[in-house]
Amino acid sequence: MEGFRILEVKQSIFENNDRDADRLREELRREKTFLLNLMSSPGSGKTTTLKRTIAALKDEFRIGVMEADIDSDVDAAAIEQTGAKVIQIHTGGMCHLDADMTRQGLRGLGTEDVDLAILENIGNLVCPAEFDTGAVKNAMILSVPEGDDKPLKYPLMFSICDVLLINKIDVLPYFDFDIEKCKEYVRRLNPNMVILPVSSRTGEGIDAWADWLRKETRAFIG
Amino acid sequence: MEGFRILEVKQSIFENNDRDADRLREELRREKTFLLNLMSSPGSGKTTTLKRTIAALKDEFRIGVMEADIDSDVDAAAIEQTGAKVIQIHTGGMCHLDADMTRQGLRGLGTEDVDLAILENIGNLVCPAEFDTGAVKNAMILSVPEGDDKPLKYPLMFSICDVLLINKIDVLPYFDFDIEKCKEYVRRLNPNMVILPVSSRTGEGIDAWADWLRKETRAFIG
Repeated sequence: MEGFRILEVKQSIFENNDRDADRLREELRREKTFLLNLMSSPGSGKTTTLKRTIAALKDEFRIGVMEADIDSDVDAAAIEQTGAKVIQIHTGGMCHLDADMTRQGLRGLGTEDVDLAILENIGNLVCPAEFDTGAVKNAMILSVPEGDDKPLKYPLMFSICDVLLINKIDVLPYFDFDIEKCKEYVRRLNPNMVILPVSSRTGEGIDAWADWLRKETRAFIG
Repeated sequence: MEGFRILEVKQSIFENNDRDADRLREELRREKTFLLNLMSSPGSGKTTTLKRTIAALKDEFRIGVMEADIDSDVDAAAIEQTGAKVIQIHTGGMCHLDADMTRQGLRGLGTEDVDLAILENIGNLVCPAEFDTGAVKNAMILSVPEGDDKPLKYPLMFSICDVLLINKIDVLPYFDFDIEKCKEYVRRLNPNMVILPVSSRTGEGIDAWADWLRKETRAFIG
């Protein structure tokens, strides 16, 4: 039997999600818990990246992970093996999480012993971009096999994120993916975005990503 | 300047989308136009697969393509080069198309000279599965880099489709993707699903896919 809890979150009762998201960030500041919202397409490597991230930072921060999924728990089972605190959130078919659903997840996880909370959002480049979860920072992953033109097609997601991980760079030789072209598309939408090429399979580039996340977490929790 | 039209579709005014979808299928039958709804994650190869499909079937059917996107037109530009009739549909941020939005697209495309219409839906494994577009058949693509566990995580999409193309099989050596395991996950959800491994880059397997689509189209348009 799994050791993690499965929480069915309910759709928000708040009319103004943006205001509720701001409220959640204030709560997180008081609780000294940094929340990262991690988004991507299905299969771009969120869970594998999370495992690498936990391995890199687990000696410095108490990490808690919320795995959002429509109704499976394969990701929470994978994260549990790292020893990090984890909860599986089921959205019951919904394609995104809003701030109150995220708050339900944080309460289910328990943040009193968590410095760095990470929400692995639903695999979807459209809907999650439209709802502020209350996270302190938004990160996204674009994987090499998806193609360098995705910023043109999902501009909102690339506009609202603080950092972009270009994942699966170990397979660059087998795909027509031009990193410079991708960066140029991203810069047009979001000139300040931090762009980090990584391979969560080989570990390449994970240090730079862990450095970014360490700095942001420390700046927030003090 | 591009030769294709860009159509901004409006959200449906119909309360009962399922009934409207049935109505659209009746209209298509009268017009002798087969409509295929093609769905997948972002970057799994819908457009490249479409180009191969058009090349395989353009001498047998008059083909029309509706490229749905949030607000870019890169896919319509790619399809235009094949010589097929094409229209770009913009959903204005919406993550799916319903039957009436599809009907608006078909009217914009013009079906009087189209035997086989193909809707390339928004890249998303969640929302498009929830709305019957009125298509005669639903096809989906899962690409090898996305992982063999996707049926577990996006069960509705795998349940409502008639055919699954497992794309990018040319890169199987570089990814941990077990085709037999994937098939087993799919069969649990959808025992009758036709599963076809293809590589739209190399053309491998495209003949079997074209055979399936030819048979379905002929059966519908008579």
